[in-house]
Amino acid sequence: MLSIDPQRLIDNLHTLRSIGACGAGVVRTALSEADLRARYWLMERLDEAGLEASLDGVGNVMGRSRTKSRNVLLIGSHTDTQPTGGWLDGALGVIYGLEIAHTIAAADMGDAFAVDVVSWSDEEGTFCHNLGARTACGEFDLCRATQTHNESGEALAAVLEQAGLSGRPAMRLERDRYLAYLEAHIEQGPHLEKSGHRIGVVTGIVGIRDLEISTEGEQNHAGTTPMALRRDAGAGLLHVAHRLSQLMREISRPETVWTIGHIAFEPGAPSIIPGKARMQVQIRDPDDAHLDEIVAAIERLIGECQRSMTVDVQLGAAVDRAAAVSMDRAVHDHIARAAEALVPGAWKSMPSGAGHDAQILARHVPAGMLFVPSIGGISHDFAEDTDEADIVMGCRVAAAAAIAILSADRDAGGNL
Amino acid sequence: MLSIDPQRLIDNLHTLRSIGACGAGVVRTALSEADLRARYWLMERLDEAGLEASLDGVGNVMGRSRTKSRNVLLIGSHTDTQPTGGWLDGALGVIYGLEIAHTIAAADMGDAFAVDVVSWSDEEGTFCHNLGARTACGEFDLCRATQTHNESGEALAAVLEQAGLSGRPAMRLERDRYLAYLEAHIEQGPHLEKSGHRIGVVTGIVGIRDLEISTEGEQNHAGTTPMALRRDAGAGLLHVAHRLSQLMREISRPETVWTIGHIAFEPGAPSIIPGKARMQVQIRDPDDAHLDEIVAAIERLIGECQRSMTVDVQLGAAVDRAAAVSMDRAVHDHIARAAEALVPGAWKSMPSGAGHDAQILARHVPAGMLFVPSIGGISHDFAEDTDEADIVMGCRVAAAAAIAILSADRDAGGNL
Repeated sequence: MLSIDPQRLIDNLHTLRSIGACGAGVVRTALSEADLRARYWLMERLDEAGLEASLDGVGNVMGRSRTKSRNVLLIGSHTDTQPTGGWLDGALGVIYGLEIAHTIAAADMGDAFAVDVVSWSDEEGTFCHNLGARTACGEFDLCRATQTHNESGEALAAVLEQAGLSGRPAMRLERDRYLAYLEAHIEQGPHLEKSGHRIGVVTGIVGIRDLEISTEGEQNHAGTTPMALRRDAGAGLLHVAHRLSQLMREISRPETVWTIGHIAFEPGAPSIIPGKARMQVQIRDPDDAHLDEIVAAIERLIGECQRSMTVDVQLGAAVDRAAAVSMDRAVHDHIARAAEALVPGAWKSMPSGAGHDAQILARHVPAGMLFVPSIGGISHDFAEDTDEADIVMGCRVAAAAAIAILSADRDAGGNL
Repeated sequence: MLSIDPQRLIDNLHTLRSIGACGAGVVRTALSEADLRARYWLMERLDEAGLEASLDGVGNVMGRSRTKSRNVLLIGSHTDTQPTGGWLDGALGVIYGLEIAHTIAAADMGDAFAVDVVSWSDEEGTFCHNLGARTACGEFDLCRATQTHNESGEALAAVLEQAGLSGRPAMRLERDRYLAYLEAHIEQGPHLEKSGHRIGVVTGIVGIRDLEISTEGEQNHAGTTPMALRRDAGAGLLHVAHRLSQLMREISRPETVWTIGHIAFEPGAPSIIPGKARMQVQIRDPDDAHLDEIVAAIERLIGECQRSMTVDVQLGAAVDRAAAVSMDRAVHDHIARAAEALVPGAWKSMPSGAGHDAQILARHVPAGMLFVPSIGGISHDFAEDTDEADIVMGCRVAAAAAIAILSADRDAGGNL
């Protein structure tokens, strides 16, 4: 059993928390001055841990094992945060990787136990969700950096140049090098806390479909236009929302979640009949085929509304924000056995409702994830937190799973 | 029959249109540089027409008849516009007053035919709807000018000071001086055009109730929070909107109109369950008692929603934006007879769905209004327009009605 150093783990998490600290929270959005400072700090820690640290042309930090092994375990997550982020989202999985690599290096366990550690750039989507992981996996081409902007309208290319990164090559994931990718993360939901479990072993990550439904009618005076002559885009959209809600109740499965997160009427004044209206609908489900069925049912509903309503109703092309992916079964089982050994009966298998870098990586190498509980289910908020005992236990389970994956490969002569 | 000068009427309307012109439209919001320029221009025209012009401490322009008559007809409207206004909304009624007073003065008809002409300040509500008329009628106290702001946050007091008006007294309506108040206006709706009528004789102006309905739930991650554990303020508000729509279908009368003009979810992002949501509901009806019944029914509905829903539902105090008022029957009949003489069979009695300065004046002196058709029913927009023939005919009807009102008073020895 690999014995991690709980104090070093917690100290490193708190030092990282101090970079971009804002009260109890952290503001360290991708490629900001604080994000870059955190990445240079991480490189020093990775070097200390015996790894060969580098920063690539999109902001990914990689700590590469100096062993000669060609069967390496990649552990990591991201160190960028939401605009008003918490201290553990992303940071936890990166510092777990650092701690496990440091412990293995100090234990001098031989070439078979090789761990690389990564902090992916811009997981939170300041410019593009999972930017660093997508770039490394060949799913984002940096020639799009001039057309990719943050909310302030700054181009990614200009921000990379300003950060002094534009001359560096972008890292490419060495598929053949990696046995697996392992990512630990806070749950960001209430399930583990509510059910009293200390570890979640992720079975898969939900797919996400983003839809925009819009209506167009005729803007008019709210006092002088009789009800029968109106083509009220706002009232029309509210009717569509009601029909959508009925439909979703019929076709949702227990694991489906859906949300209308944004709605707006134009011009949006009390005395004016809205001429245009739109809303954003997001649907998540662990089964991509079911997501496709839901989107098809919504398309039929919108078609029906188009034919029966006096306002024009449009469904924007569904954006596949993320495809559902399964975690690798063998990696899942290694994590599950490690959890059962350390917290017997206090772990469970579960899907992830949130997106993670592992969602990208899983399309290219075997991937697995584990969750620790989020207090109150809160994340993407300064109040985000996890019990220190759970933070330490999560790292112990991750370390045990890492050793199991690497041992299995060694024992099998190179087959995980 | 008083013979107005159609060319002078149209010329004056076009000159006024040029002050603050923006393409086909006009931007002359209350107390802006353009609005003040238009008011000084109007004072010169009123002086030329033989009246004694003055500008008061809130921006009202008054042209006072120099005759000795104590039974005077007040004619007017407003010369301020919406932020993207049309050229006739308000301007029409003021220039009709100018043209009628000018024609009467030139005709030397004697002391009995006395007309004052007014342009009220800020009818459109840049600072406060019907500010000038309310101030003159004692319904707005200028000591509130420091707490009354425009959308840019400028205080009315500061803007009046900047306009050089803060030293001037605010005009008080001389109730005993006026036989009646007469206001002509574009219809701002489609009724006259659709029914082929050229003149609308207003029976009353609808009352307006503004309501805000808000919900509060729990902001959360749209991926990791299961449907059953959500307290989604957005979904809650959409449910209330649906119930409200059902209720309004049941209790509306044919003359009731209602609008949800604005809706917003907080924080308004696709991946976040809204923690707060609110919408603005406006209801108009010519019968204040029916408006009160509607508001009471909505209060009962919100109470029911509060008891049955998991989100908190609140109804803000209903704002009586305007009370419904009837136009004076005798003034209505004078206008109707004038219309029947000039456009036989092509006029109709109708309520006004929009608010007007006459709504304030009617509480203090007998008031009447007439409408000319709006092309396409459009107003509060650069595209607002009326056929020139209709503009001229409206002034002829207003002039004939004015002469009839003044003649009736003279013949009755001072009783309208």
